[in-house]
Amino acid sequence: MAALLQSKRDISRLEDYLEAIYNLNSEKGYVNAADVSEKLGVRPPTVSSMVRNLTRKGFLEHERYRGMSLTPAGEKVAKSVIKRHRVISGFISMLGVDEQTAYVDTEGIEHHVHPSTLRRLERLAEYLRENPQTLRAIQDFVEEK
Amino acid sequence: MAALLQSKRDISRLEDYLEAIYNLNSEKGYVNAADVSEKLGVRPPTVSSMVRNLTRKGFLEHERYRGMSLTPAGEKVAKSVIKRHRVISGFISMLGVDEQTAYVDTEGIEHHVHPSTLRRLERLAEYLRENPQTLRAIQDFVEEK
Repeated sequence: MAALLQSKRDISRLEDYLEAIYNLNSEKGYVNAADVSEKLGVRPPTVSSMVRNLTRKGFLEHERYRGMSLTPAGEKVAKSVIKRHRVISGFISMLGVDEQTAYVDTEGIEHHVHPSTLRRLERLAEYLRENPQTLRAIQDFVEEK
Repeated sequence: MAALLQSKRDISRLEDYLEAIYNLNSEKGYVNAADVSEKLGVRPPTVSSMVRNLTRKGFLEHERYRGMSLTPAGEKVAKSVIKRHRVISGFISMLGVDEQTAYVDTEGIEHHVHPSTLRRLERLAEYLRENPQTLRAIQDFVEEK
């Protein structure tokens, strides 16, 4: 059980890095270790060690003095992490949860949702968007007491 | 950030203990450290140290050789943890997620859901139970592709 938790935490961390690198690249066009360190609030040596790890795993290409970029495999993971975040956060917001709470909850929840649960949440949100009168009725009911 | 995560993890662990003790007491009528150790899959010295901690915090009464019982404060936390589990698990199951996945997801998610989000999830589930035709339509839509 401890081993499982450990490995789950490792995966969460890996996903956080790939997501941060993807976002930094979209925002700035390039990414160096200092950017990642600042974005994730972790110390530079920790970033260096994770960058080596991600490179070894084939998620990242890293040229000394030239910054880092995601490989197609890394980009695929980053995109699915970002999509997952959007699905969960979108669903929670639909229920009328305030933005800050929705953000914190999503950050906590996102690494613990099975892909099949995520797909269903996404479909539920899709249904409610396509059926605004149902969404409205649910929102009224949720706020009622 | 690390301090925050640490404390969140501490709270999760505390909640797991109170939940386990509450459930063991319901099942067996009494609880000793060996039961808790087995239920949570942790070593007896860890249980002893947590039992002291929970006693100090006023959640637990513990008489040597006579087992332990929750104080009213401990029982209140345990009940809210159990209710939270039931709300999340009930909602996920409504979406047609299989039992095992719903269980694992709930265990992962439950410590990360803000009370206001939880209340809204509960109301959403309540709405769907009171409107079975809407629930059926959503379930069909979710399974569609």
